[in-house]
This record gives sequence, structure tokens and C-alpha cells, in this order.
Amino acid sequence: MRILHSSDWHLGRRLYGFHLLEDQAYVLEQFTRMAADTKPDLIVLAGDLYDIANPPAESIRLMNDVINRLVLDLKKRVLVISGNHDSADRIGFASRLLEESGLLMVGDLSRIGSPLRLKDEHGTVAFHPLPFVESGAIEAYLDRVAPGREPVLYGAAMGALLDHIRRGFRKKERNVLIAHLAVVGAAPTESEREIGATGIMDASLFYDFDYVALGHLHRPQSIGDRIRYSGSLLRYSESEAGQQKSASLVTIDGAGAVTIDALPFSPRRELHVLEGSYFDLRERIPEGVNTGDYIFFRFTESVPEPDADVHLRKRYPNFMNLRWAQTSVGSQDLPLIQEERMSDIELFRSFYEYTMGEQIDEEQNGLLVAAFDRLSQSEDA
Amino acid sequence: MRILHSSDWHLGRRLYGFHLLEDQAYVLEQFTRMAADTKPDLIVLAGDLYDIANPPAESIRLMNDVINRLVLDLKKRVLVISGNHDSADRIGFASRLLEESGLLMVGDLSRIGSPLRLKDEHGTVAFHPLPFVESGAIEAYLDRVAPGREPVLYGAAMGALLDHIRRGFRKKERNVLIAHLAVVGAAPTESEREIGATGIMDASLFYDFDYVALGHLHRPQSIGDRIRYSGSLLRYSESEAGQQKSASLVTIDGAGAVTIDALPFSPRRELHVLEGSYFDLRERIPEGVNTGDYIFFRFTESVPEPDADVHLRKRYPNFMNLRWAQTSVGSQDLPLIQEERMSDIELFRSFYEYTMGEQIDEEQNGLLVAAFDRLSQSEDA
Repeated sequence: MRILHSSDWHLGRRLYGFHLLEDQAYVLEQFTRMAADTKPDLIVLAGDLYDIANPPAESIRLMNDVINRLVLDLKKRVLVISGNHDSADRIGFASRLLEESGLLMVGDLSRIGSPLRLKDEHGTVAFHPLPFVESGAIEAYLDRVAPGREPVLYGAAMGALLDHIRRGFRKKERNVLIAHLAVVGAAPTESEREIGATGIMDASLFYDFDYVALGHLHRPQSIGDRIRYSGSLLRYSESEAGQQKSASLVTIDGAGAVTIDALPFSPRRELHVLEGSYFDLRERIPEGVNTGDYIFFRFTESVPEPDADVHLRKRYPNFMNLRWAQTSVGSQDLPLIQEERMSDIELFRSFYEYTMGEQIDEEQNGLLVAAFDRLSQSEDA
Repeated sequence: MRILHSSDWHLGRRLYGFHLLEDQAYVLEQFTRMAADTKPDLIVLAGDLYDIANPPAESIRLMNDVINRLVLDLKKRVLVISGNHDSADRIGFASRLLEESGLLMVGDLSRIGSPLRLKDEHGTVAFHPLPFVESGAIEAYLDRVAPGREPVLYGAAMGALLDHIRRGFRKKERNVLIAHLAVVGAAPTESEREIGATGIMDASLFYDFDYVALGHLHRPQSIGDRIRYSGSLLRYSESEAGQQKSASLVTIDGAGAVTIDALPFSPRRELHVLEGSYFDLRERIPEGVNTGDYIFFRFTESVPEPDADVHLRKRYPNFMNLRWAQTSVGSQDLPLIQEERMSDIELFRSFYEYTMGEQIDEEQNGLLVAAFDRLSQSEDA
């Protein structure tokens, strides 16, 4: 059985004001070619297809194009789960109708107990989709299938849910889990949303699965030899500079033994962090850097140079941000922003994006607008 | 051939702060029962399924439930076009995959020239879906199928598009058009969005179609004997008080002659406009009015009574708005709003909703927030 495993496409994402949709389409073109070349039995997308619950129309259109190519043109089966960035209801719309066509989009726990079963020459592999859900949804599910439990912490609830899945294992079947969560020992980057109260799972929770296809962390990585983050489609933060992004081609043999191949993506633009003297970097383009790449500058000078951004922009049209050396956290640590053109709310959004490494979501934005309203009212009074 | 025709569900709509989702679910329950009882060959939904392009998750969930009941439980075919309130890309997502299952969701002009064809004992009926599209999309389409045209006004472009559809008519087939637009001579209400530059079509444009299933106007009505607005699911504005909403059951015989039955909906709450003296209406509940209904009050007194809303709310918990008699347009004409609890932006939204009879959309909201930002900055300076 061969699985092409990817995740964290974050379609619609912006980074420091740069729309990445064209970059995403560029790499997804490679992904569909991989799907054609490697002939997987199943394509697995382990969550965070979109960057926000309410993605812009153009990112839905891109997703639609990719799905049409994979399912209709290449006749591939695709299994998708929703991640913490996705809206479970949007991902799950018409899912019962879509399954017949080869596309299984899972946004809730309704597929626990009825995994997708595919056959190869060695027998059956059961694919168990476990989308990202809040603690309450797990508790509600467990209350229904195993009433009388006490509410427990997220990790314990997840453990009970995995036990429940395991109890449905059939003899001689191999089992694959598809989930969107954080595992202890895995290395995060700046661009995953804090999972906060949902906690971090211990890898031991996943015993007995032949393969665990994970999404959530953006660095492609294996935990042991059966648990893997395929990693994100692109470098979505400064901390991901230098990371080779890839899809994972997973082969499971008749005994359940797993082989994993990382199939590298070539981004439309590289992302670099360049450290050195402002005056040096302004004059001398470092080796291996294309001036069209996305660049973060870390300058050794501690006194900000006026109009540095204007000079740099001429040579590096896509540079994202610059920072000056600092002795303590100060205002020079703020992102490069065109303050005079921005409203207070935009300034705050920009600051948030800079400090959190992610965009503000819809709910947060609502709170923000309300807060600024109140502020401006109290200032007027 | 029997068609159950509905439109303008506007799932997710709010009216004067009241969420109507429960009301919508209540009437959609009746709609699915109609679909079971009347055994149509096709269910047609002529646009504005959702109230906004980015509908809230709970309205997507309701739509999903209804679609599952119609397509999976009742085994009905459903044809949906997007309206001006819908996002064409959201409606069209995975449409090529969904069609096999019996659900055809059309958000663009890709089905011009390849209508859905269904057979009955008399032969074939071709269903031509024409979703709401901007003028530019029609021009682009016509440029492709009939290059060398000059750009024309919307009505003329629509005429050319309909001619193009007609040229694809096959001998002996009956033809049904499903569209979302305004037709001359039809009676609008306050709650359709202004279609503005897109213009109003003349009914003569639709010659040669055996039936034209329209959406957009909220009053159920026929224009001639072959063109029909099924009307909206609920009364979505004050001007719709007293309107009997319905679905249209359309029978087309072998010769293409059409019979239309209006199947009435019973809303969860009636919507009334009560005119009279404040002191009378406060004391005496008019016949036929349930105090739980949605009510608009028009008082004969011209001097507003303090705390009228507080007194009325005790007796009529769901009253929506009140107005005092007026000699000229003045502040007493404003909707009932809890000013002290609302921000400037909320006040404006409320005013807009009152005057336009519809909610502010996402783009307008962005402009609004930006405008208030600028205002508060200039006030601070």
C-alpha cells in the first residue's frame, strides 16, 4: 500500500503582506505531478488545508482545481481531515455525497468506527481519520459510545478515543491514523498556531497503528519510524528558512513495516534570513540568494538607518522584514511597516503578525475592532 | 416532468438583530416533506441559498443537513445555482465531483451548452443553469464562444447569452432555464439587494423556454404563464408582511405546457406590521397576532413615548422595530436600537440594515471599518 501524505497547505496565507497563493499553486503543481508519478493508492491531507476558517474565494478555487486534477484527471482517492485552521463544517460540507466520487473530507468524529478500508495484494488497510476537534467534541463523542465517563484532560480524552478506535481494529488488517495534533518531542516552528489548552500528545498514545500521518507542525519530521509530519507546503515563517519542505511517500508492506520517502518541493521563491552589516548586504548580494527571493534581514548595526527599507526594496523587491541589532527589546525590533499609511488597527494587526508569526483570525479581528471602537469612544468623551 | 422550485433561502440571515436560522430550519423541514410528498423529478434552487458570500458555519451545517435529506435519504436530484448573495466559488466547490451523486451546484457559466438532461415518458427536458454572474463574466464567456463582439450593456449581453443557449436547443426537447435576476414588471420588496448596474431584464428575452425558474425577488409571482419567482423561504423584510411564502410545484406536460402549484410554507413565527395608537396596541393584542410573532409597530402618535420599547418588549418579546408618526423624515424614524450599548460602527450597521432592508456585506464592512478608523484618527489629531 502506497500513501502520498501531505498537510498544512494553508491556502490563502499571507506573510508580512505578501499573498502566497501563486507560490502555493506553484508547489501544488509539483504535488499533482508527484501524485501522477508515484501512483499512490491513497492521497492523505492531514489538516490545515486553508489558513483561516473562512478562506478567500481564490484559495477555494485553487483547492477545487487541485482536487479536480487529483480525483477526476488522475483518478486518485483523496482523504482530507480538517485542522485547527479549518472550519470543520466547511470541510465537511456534502462529504457524504462526495465520498462516492473518491474524495473523503472529514470534519468531525463521524468516521470513528467506520474507517476507509482499501485493499492491496496483502490484505486490507484501514484508514482512521481523526480531524482536529476541541476537547468538548471528544467528550461528547465518548459520552455517546461509552457513557458514564468523567471529563478528563484533552490528552487523556484523546487517549480514550484512540483506545476506542483500537477496539474496532480487525484481525489481520493494517491500521493507519490520520490526525492533526502536536506530539511530544517534535520540533515546532513559529508558524503553527498555539494549540494552547488542547495539549501535546505523547507518541506512546499511538502504539499499535502501523502508520500515523500527522499534520500541524510545519517541519517535515518523523517521530520513531511510524509517526510522521509531512510538513507544510511552504516556509510560512522566518523560523522555517532553510527547511526543505516535502511530501511523504509512505509504503506499508504486508507485515505493516513502513518505508518513508521525502519528496522535495521546489518553491517559486526561496526564503532566506540574511545576517550581517546593512551596508555590506545593501551592496553585496550573498551567494545563493536570488534578489527576487523572500528575505529577512538581521543587521549588525544597532542604530537604524533612515530609509533602509526604500534602498533595500530597490534591490530586493520581495524582502519581508528587517531588524537592527539590539541590546534590549525596543522599538527597533518592530516589523517594517509603513506607519503613516496604516490605521491603528492595521498597525496592531501588523504587530500581532510579527510577534505571533501568524495572521489574526476572524474572531480575534472582531474583538480587536470592538476594542478600538471603545478606545476611540473613550478618547472622544 | 415535475419540478419543485424554490430560491432565496438566505441561510444565516439576521433581521433587526434576530437570528433566523431556527425559523429557516423550521420551514426547510416543511420543504423536505414537500419533496417527499410531491415526488418531483428535480428540485431546483434558484440562487441566494446563503445570505452572505462567507456564511457562518451553522448555516452551512443546515444546508448540509437539507442536502443530505434530499439527495441521500429521498434520492432526489437537486440543481442549485448561485445568486448575488452567494459566493460562486463556494457554491461551485467540488461540483464536478458532486454531480454524480445527484447534486449539481453551478456557480459559473461552465454549464452553458451542456444542460442537465432528464427524461420522462414524453422525451427529454434540458435544464439550463444560469447562475448570477457579473457583466464581465458574460462578456468573457461570449468572447470565447463568439469572438469579435463589442462590449454591450448587461441586458444585451444577457440577451446574447440566452441566444447562445437557444442555439444549443435540440429538436423535440423541452427547455427550462434556471436563473437569478430581476424581470421587468415583477414586484420587488425591500429585502432584495439592489442589483444596480446589472439592470433588469425584459420578460421577452426568455421566449422559447418552456419554463423559467427564477430567483432574486422575494414575492412568489408569475410573469406570464411560464416565468416564475418561487419567492423567498421567509419574510425577510417589513415590506413582506402578509406575504404567503411558498415553493412552486411545476408540471411540464409532453407539449411543454406548464401548470404551477404554490405550496404554502407555515413560518415558525408570523411577521406583522401593526398600525395604530401606542396606548391601544400596548394594552390590546390585535386578533390573529400571537405575542411571540415578529412585529413592526407604526404608531399614530408623533411624540415618542419614553421607554416604549421596554414596555412593548414585555408583551411582545420578538417585536422588531417601532416607528412614530411623522410629518417629515426625522430622528424618530430611526430603528429601535440600544444606542448606549452600541459602538459607532454597530450603530451605522444598524442604520444601514434599517434603511436598506439587508445586512451589510463583507466588503462594505471593510470599507466601513476603514472609514471609522480614518475618522477617529482625524478626530484625535
